[in-house]
Amino acid sequence: MAEQGYVIAVVGATGAVGREMLLMLEDMDLPIKEVKLLASARSAGLEVPFRGKDLVVQELSEESFQGVDVALFSAGGARSKEYADAAVKAGAIVVDNSSAFRMEENVPLVVPEVNAHALDDHEGIVANPNCSTIQMMLPLQALEQAAGIERVIVSTYQSASGAGQAGIDELWAQTRSYIEKRPVENKVFAKPLPFDVLPQIGDFEPSGYTTEEEKMFYESRKILGLPELAVSATCARVPVLRGHLESVSVDLKKALSVEEARKAFEAFPGLVVVDDPVNMDYPTAHACVGHRETYVGRIRADHVLPKTLHFWVACDNLWKGAAWNAVQIVESLHERGLLRG
Amino acid sequence: MAEQGYVIAVVGATGAVGREMLLMLEDMDLPIKEVKLLASARSAGLEVPFRGKDLVVQELSEESFQGVDVALFSAGGARSKEYADAAVKAGAIVVDNSSAFRMEENVPLVVPEVNAHALDDHEGIVANPNCSTIQMMLPLQALEQAAGIERVIVSTYQSASGAGQAGIDELWAQTRSYIEKRPVENKVFAKPLPFDVLPQIGDFEPSGYTTEEEKMFYESRKILGLPELAVSATCARVPVLRGHLESVSVDLKKALSVEEARKAFEAFPGLVVVDDPVNMDYPTAHACVGHRETYVGRIRADHVLPKTLHFWVACDNLWKGAAWNAVQIVESLHERGLLRG
Repeated sequence: MAEQGYVIAVVGATGAVGREMLLMLEDMDLPIKEVKLLASARSAGLEVPFRGKDLVVQELSEESFQGVDVALFSAGGARSKEYADAAVKAGAIVVDNSSAFRMEENVPLVVPEVNAHALDDHEGIVANPNCSTIQMMLPLQALEQAAGIERVIVSTYQSASGAGQAGIDELWAQTRSYIEKRPVENKVFAKPLPFDVLPQIGDFEPSGYTTEEEKMFYESRKILGLPELAVSATCARVPVLRGHLESVSVDLKKALSVEEARKAFEAFPGLVVVDDPVNMDYPTAHACVGHRETYVGRIRADHVLPKTLHFWVACDNLWKGAAWNAVQIVESLHERGLLRG
Repeated sequence: MAEQGYVIAVVGATGAVGREMLLMLEDMDLPIKEVKLLASARSAGLEVPFRGKDLVVQELSEESFQGVDVALFSAGGARSKEYADAAVKAGAIVVDNSSAFRMEENVPLVVPEVNAHALDDHEGIVANPNCSTIQMMLPLQALEQAAGIERVIVSTYQSASGAGQAGIDELWAQTRSYIEKRPVENKVFAKPLPFDVLPQIGDFEPSGYTTEEEKMFYESRKILGLPELAVSATCARVPVLRGHLESVSVDLKKALSVEEARKAFEAFPGLVVVDDPVNMDYPTAHACVGHRETYVGRIRADHVLPKTLHFWVACDNLWKGAAWNAVQIVESLHERGLLRG
């Protein structure tokens, strides 16, 4: 690590997203002086390699943030609510991966390719959006810039890893049991997931929507800066280990051809067009895992409505949908001169 | 079997749908004098139990249809095109499960709960719609009657069994290989399906849509008798063995509350509402397999648009999506006095 640079804390360093955050940080050009790994008492003492050294996981406490410049939180909403204040008081900027602060007015909710400018108004906490929201922000912002968007309808195909390592482990163990004709037990998901699709992610709200669907509605409006946007989401868990997929339909303010949309997508940072039906190539979960990019394909004009387009989006929900977007926020804070260090 | 009654031929009797057709026929009140099982030379000679007797599969030929009153075809479009004429010439009514004749003007395309009346105009061939089309026809017709429908956006979650027994076998074998960390081979699907989602069902058309998506567009308009209806489908294959699921958004001609929609669904024949978020109950693939009904749940009002509703539909694609709908057509032909016998 560098002599000069930032002190970065990772809260929830041993979780599915925390581990990916470390991978992302390892690879970055950012000057890093020290990385502090924080987790619950259960994980304290574990050693985790980082840039050739073994870092020891420390137990998270209110005193953990002395000297920390930026604290990446990925240990669930309750932990964020309990410790974010202490981190901010110690002078750190909190980049929080939970939903705890996302809709608070003084908390920027940021997908760097879309609204990095919002970081300038932070008051100590920056929120990382929900995974399924993040991945559709890139193509939607591309279309907003090209033609204006009026209405979005999205149906998701979300992987088990959205529920963390426990979700991955449960799907794997359940599938093995199913194949071996042993009883299938479920704890993480509401019902057994192997060979089924569950139209439930999160809890149900009185509106009939799930918390995940509500997040896609409210967060999209905030990130895109379109407070009147009509967004309707249906979120479903599919028996995929990692990688989220989405079927998106958009009504635009003016007509845009498939070719124009493709150009807008291709020109947008972080977005890769994979749309070659003749060779049966389109975004899949397997192809997006382990990549930082968001993939868009199956771009089609509506049969009837001249201002409507349909497309398919895939991304690694643990990377761009979580760890990578959070680390990109740190990078953006650095580039904008917002990090002390 | 009865002394008096119909002679029914099943073409493709040993396939995934053909076998389910026999199960459905076994259970019916319809007077059946004889069931003839027809298949390719490869399957000829196999014995299949039916109502306590063993029926011998015969090789399909142009002479197979002498004395047949109704011929259920489920052996692929090529076979239908080759033999349907011979069956009609022999005096049989053909109920065809392939896409060969669906869009021909003189061929009724029928979901009995929706448009049994179309059978009256048959000229020898009746078409059974595409599986993913059938299951959304019931809730859409319920809403058409209650409020009028203007636009439909649907994203599907379709199981491997949509590609027949070979699809089921491939997903099962691939999943076992994946779990046991052996190489995964694919023949039926364009890419390996375990733990992934493939936004391709059928082949790609020049429009960028797949044949499956085009079917949902054209067939829906014909069945519902709404030639101007805007229907946009995105069809995806999910690693589910049996049972198709759909996320449907509908713009109505007039506002309808969730409660009114629920009542319309509950009153519609063949439709069962499973929509109890508090108890985490909603339609799934596992719960619909082996049932003749179509299940609807997750009924929600749009956040913004007063005339828009969203819901989730599941059905056993081999039963209501294929075999049961075909056998229901036979039943409707009988009830309408259209079958000779």
